Amino acid sequence: MTLGTIGDTIDAASEIPNVQTAVLSKDLSFQLESGRRFGPIEVAYKTFGELNRDKSNAVFVFPTLTATPQVASETVGGKVFPGWWQNMVGKGKAIDTEKFFVICADHFGGCYGSTGPSSKNPDNGHEFGLNFPGFFIRDMVNVSLLFLKHLGIWKLHAVVGASIGGLLALELVALKKNLAKNALILGASHKVSATYLALNYIARQAIMLDPQWNNGNYYGRGFPEKGLSIARQIGHISYLNHLLLESKFGRAPVNEKFRNHVSLDTQYRIESYLDYQGKKFCKRFDPNSYIYLSKAIDTFDLLREFGSIKNAFRGTGTKFTFITISSDNLFLPQDSMELHKELLGCNVNSSYNEVNSPKGHDGLFLETGELASLVRDSLGN
Amino acid sequence: MTLGTIGDTIDAASEIPNVQTAVLSKDLSFQLESGRRFGPIEVAYKTFGELNRDKSNAVFVFPTLTATPQVASETVGGKVFPGWWQNMVGKGKAIDTEKFFVICADHFGGCYGSTGPSSKNPDNGHEFGLNFPGFFIRDMVNVSLLFLKHLGIWKLHAVVGASIGGLLALELVALKKNLAKNALILGASHKVSATYLALNYIARQAIMLDPQWNNGNYYGRGFPEKGLSIARQIGHISYLNHLLLESKFGRAPVNEKFRNHVSLDTQYRIESYLDYQGKKFCKRFDPNSYIYLSKAIDTFDLLREFGSIKNAFRGTGTKFTFITISSDNLFLPQDSMELHKELLGCNVNSSYNEVNSPKGHDGLFLETGELASLVRDSLGN
Repeated sequence: MTLGTIGDTIDAASEIPNVQTAVLSKDLSFQLESGRRFGPIEVAYKTFGELNRDKSNAVFVFPTLTATPQVASETVGGKVFPGWWQNMVGKGKAIDTEKFFVICADHFGGCYGSTGPSSKNPDNGHEFGLNFPGFFIRDMVNVSLLFLKHLGIWKLHAVVGASIGGLLALELVALKKNLAKNALILGASHKVSATYLALNYIARQAIMLDPQWNNGNYYGRGFPEKGLSIARQIGHISYLNHLLLESKFGRAPVNEKFRNHVSLDTQYRIESYLDYQGKKFCKRFDPNSYIYLSKAIDTFDLLREFGSIKNAFRGTGTKFTFITISSDNLFLPQDSMELHKELLGCNVNSSYNEVNSPKGHDGLFLETGELASLVRDSLGN
Repeated sequence: MTLGTIGDTIDAASEIPNVQTAVLSKDLSFQLESGRRFGPIEVAYKTFGELNRDKSNAVFVFPTLTATPQVASETVGGKVFPGWWQNMVGKGKAIDTEKFFVICADHFGGCYGSTGPSSKNPDNGHEFGLNFPGFFIRDMVNVSLLFLKHLGIWKLHAVVGASIGGLLALELVALKKNLAKNALILGASHKVSATYLALNYIARQAIMLDPQWNNGNYYGRGFPEKGLSIARQIGHISYLNHLLLESKFGRAPVNEKFRNHVSLDTQYRIESYLDYQGKKFCKRFDPNSYIYLSKAIDTFDLLREFGSIKNAFRGTGTKFTFITISSDNLFLPQDSMELHKELLGCNVNSSYNEVNSPKGHDGLFLETGELASLVRDSLGN
């Protein structure tokens, strides 16, 4: 079994060429679910392909928790900028940018150009830090709806999301029942598990324990690299299935001489891998964004918002496609199946597909063959 | 399904009545696997029941990672001291203290009275901290062998261990092939998984990130409570099966009003549970002991020591009983099964039993019926 570049696909570089910025509001006109008014709001985004004349070929892809708007690969000035979902999005790929106008925007609360905790507060010129308002997945989608309006997009051929992107796509359909013709929900469901809540809680504590975090006021002073690195490492453990970790790393030492001693330095390859992933992540992500976005995942709760799954989706014209990875431990396939059945129960068009793969949650970004075929089919290619 | 007191059984209080201390060496006569000489060495222990005339009824129980020598419950001065394995060890229990002389000693490197990182270095009167020597499971067992000799115990009716205790029991049999008549290995095998290495590595980083840890020199100054708490929380996630976490906590908020806001304070019951477990643990465990003992788990490697499993156990007169919990994610049942088959392959007497339970690794301390019957049978009761 070739395991390839575990975790690397999702870890695309943060350098983004030709990113565009949409100014959605210059004042406090946007109201959050909490009741708080907030602004100004900007969204950084990229598009791939061309919008057709009747504006019917737009595919809106929500990023994963830490992904950039660079969803597809691109060559600019002779340099290749890899897309975080290059296996799936691009010319001739399942989400074909020769056919579709693909839009991918940085999250509200993110750190790749959209307004977030690392943005400057216009009131005082300092980064928001923890003064950034708390927000829900619903707030993020409301910002996305303003953004689509800004682009002049009134209908979507599809909304697509994996992991947190799937939560955002679900929320979008629940709020705008006739905006998207298709919804592709990959490795996500209505259920954020107790285990995921626990992992996010532990990850946030690690960030906040780092003295460099300084209650969120680290901009221009330091960077809580150790804390954010631990948070990312906790994430990686949950993205990968334990059998995959075993076959890839086992208990191989970094160096054979390390078999015979006890050291607090990096001793095993799995430790070295975690170090590498943690450090790499620190070059591209804002710790406060991690805190806020992980809270948005935790608080996602369609039952709270709509009273029931049926209330959330009844009457939508959107056709759903659920795709899961059999070994996903973060969002369990059976939870997506449960949601699929709820949708069928209120006469919503829905299909469910499980890809048999040992690659865990990350399989969503590593698998190609069957997964790509399912995505292609769901878009009516 | 009644889930009872998750994690509480294993979390017995550290207050130990009538603990005894064995002084094993007063000088540097003990040589570690690393070649370093170390001493003095003391071991804190408790015994339950009476040693019979021919000294043939001793059962040596290795503690889990953080358990005390108080393996069975006891009432002293009208006060009940709960045993960390009270479901299994005590009068009339599967490991019956009316029949067996049960011995349980604090680990070498522990913090309940045996020599460890929180012990005073006789050279300077200060706690060892990180000056304590690195040690392997093999070193811990060599100390245990000195300890049994000190007690005048030359044969064991059984050596028993769960989790890290199982690793210690395996090592004991490998080093002394005719000391124990029976070996009970619960929720352990020859394989420490890449996932377990990863979890231990992340946990240690969290402890060391706490400014109070102060490079291990916190004695009499402060206590890295936040770091140790995170380490313990990571442990708890791995001890419990995710389905158990889901049914016990789901996404229930601490208070209904918390459903409608975003807070970095404890918002969900799973968070509150983790907080509680983390804080409780800090009252009874030494962070440096956690670092050293988790490293001993990580470096356990019978292949390194003996070249092969068969080399480690061929020729032993010990009869093995492996017991696993079906939902254990920390030590996988199939790994214990693999070891069992290796033993059969070199004509060692071995039996394998899997208890069907949703309680994960902690099921070893929570399950009673079938698990207790298997333990009882394995001792020839």
